[in-house]
Amino acid sequence: MDHTDDLPDDLPDDLPGDDYLIRPDPHDPRLTERVTGVDQTGAAIETSVTVERALTIFLNSQEIVTAMTINDHPEYLALGYLLNQNMLKASDVVTGVDYDEELSVVVVRTRRKTNYEKKLKKKVQTSGCAQGTVFGDLMEALENVTLPPAELRTSWLYTLTQKINTTPSLYLEAGAIHGCVLAQEDRPLVYMEDVGRHNAVDKIAGWMFKHAVTGGDKIFYTTGRLTSEMVIKTVRMGIPILVSRSGFTAWGVELARKANLTLIGRARGKRFVALAGAERIVFDQDLAYVEEESAKHRRKAAVHDD
Amino acid sequence: MDHTDDLPDDLPDDLPGDDYLIRPDPHDPRLTERVTGVDQTGAAIETSVTVERALTIFLNSQEIVTAMTINDHPEYLALGYLLNQNMLKASDVVTGVDYDEELSVVVVRTRRKTNYEKKLKKKVQTSGCAQGTVFGDLMEALENVTLPPAELRTSWLYTLTQKINTTPSLYLEAGAIHGCVLAQEDRPLVYMEDVGRHNAVDKIAGWMFKHAVTGGDKIFYTTGRLTSEMVIKTVRMGIPILVSRSGFTAWGVELARKANLTLIGRARGKRFVALAGAERIVFDQDLAYVEEESAKHRRKAAVHDD
Repeated sequence: MDHTDDLPDDLPDDLPGDDYLIRPDPHDPRLTERVTGVDQTGAAIETSVTVERALTIFLNSQEIVTAMTINDHPEYLALGYLLNQNMLKASDVVTGVDYDEELSVVVVRTRRKTNYEKKLKKKVQTSGCAQGTVFGDLMEALENVTLPPAELRTSWLYTLTQKINTTPSLYLEAGAIHGCVLAQEDRPLVYMEDVGRHNAVDKIAGWMFKHAVTGGDKIFYTTGRLTSEMVIKTVRMGIPILVSRSGFTAWGVELARKANLTLIGRARGKRFVALAGAERIVFDQDLAYVEEESAKHRRKAAVHDD
Repeated sequence: MDHTDDLPDDLPDDLPGDDYLIRPDPHDPRLTERVTGVDQTGAAIETSVTVERALTIFLNSQEIVTAMTINDHPEYLALGYLLNQNMLKASDVVTGVDYDEELSVVVVRTRRKTNYEKKLKKKVQTSGCAQGTVFGDLMEALENVTLPPAELRTSWLYTLTQKINTTPSLYLEAGAIHGCVLAQEDRPLVYMEDVGRHNAVDKIAGWMFKHAVTGGDKIFYTTGRLTSEMVIKTVRMGIPILVSRSGFTAWGVELARKANLTLIGRARGKRFVALAGAERIVFDQDLAYVEEESAKHRRKAAVHDD
């Protein structure tokens, strides 16, 4: 089966089927910090904690936002953030993405002249900032997207979640982090983590834009809840299937039904619940051969939600 | 032991020691919705999902923000949000809080004339909206707070977390929700839940403001991660002790140390880790009598983090 239809040209064609294109690098020394403290017995201990950094994103000459991020992929984060805020269009020609590590600033330059002063003002007046998004604009953007027919075999789903759960990650190293995975059939392609769930999604959106990867034959997996915002971002990426090990909100379900998105939550061990788009699911897996989650995975789940 | 020193005057003095002043009402029909779907076998199922609603907050004549919330306490949320954004001062006289259910608008009126047009502009340009906060302003506010000496007995901590974990909640009913608890010694006082972790914190801040409850002898418990933002909000509430079942970020630890906040994370069963302010902890509990978390609590934990 050809997994590489619309993958970047500069990647080798002969990747083994199970190889991630991008996966977490839990041993990158910039991403965690060793700190000292005490445990429940009063004994001194040393432990790893995740590092969060302020990254300021510019679009051409305009300062757009300062995001708190682990900052492993500032370019992808900047591109994805601007895309998901509808400030960068799919048709835009990006002439450069310049990251200055010392200033912690990333500048996205486009051929088109951009001016989002008005939009920035509007954002303040209408957005649920606590949720991190401009709902009005995103809702508009939703109306122009039609998700394609697609298939999700339950055998892929179980293989996929098992691979993701056993991949070494920053979560396993230091906890307090979110994960998102772009997948195709039973193969995880890009696994991003970040302190903010939205950053992890935005980094994947930025990676897809940069490499001109389309979403129609992909599956999106998140450790976080299936909120309206997560549904909107998935639809905007053109991905017809969204899977989470966490739960649903009512508005997330409503939007998924409107957008014809397949929405699967509470996916743990052999269990899952689909509350929208169930017609894309092919129940080909014999459940007698799927294991329940082990205690190790249950613990792992504990800091994986939002 | 007197738990009611600075509790609202209009509350009875003879509350039993274990009674919450406010606790989740998982059977409130406005907070969850029944939806249909399919499970992993393809069988039709019906399940509960949490309802999120848009609530627009005004301060006097100015529209400030639209928050996504379960909307169980719009007045507390509005007060707490404005306080935590430093738009409402502790010294402000609030002349009214008017909630219009039909419009889903809440207006906070103050004797002082307010004008945050400039601040709203600044917010866009400097905040990490993905994290939901104006960091610059909050950092300034931190500098004027001195946390009092206080004591956290480990016996209180274990009793408290056990009570919280066994309290009926929206989480247990429908999942996909955050919880925060204001506590005193081993007694949980106010338990708020919301789809956004920051809403839950803000509702507690609003409750404290409304009832003139001070934080110096309180403990703050959250199901979410110990990020910089959670640390800043706790310090601003004047609460010297912050406890979470989830993990830490490096900046959260750094800020807690600067602010002299006692920061306890990964509190599950008998285990916990303190990474700041450990001198407030009194290790009075014999650990041989504390149980590890049951499998039930481990599962419960799974959708309790952020």
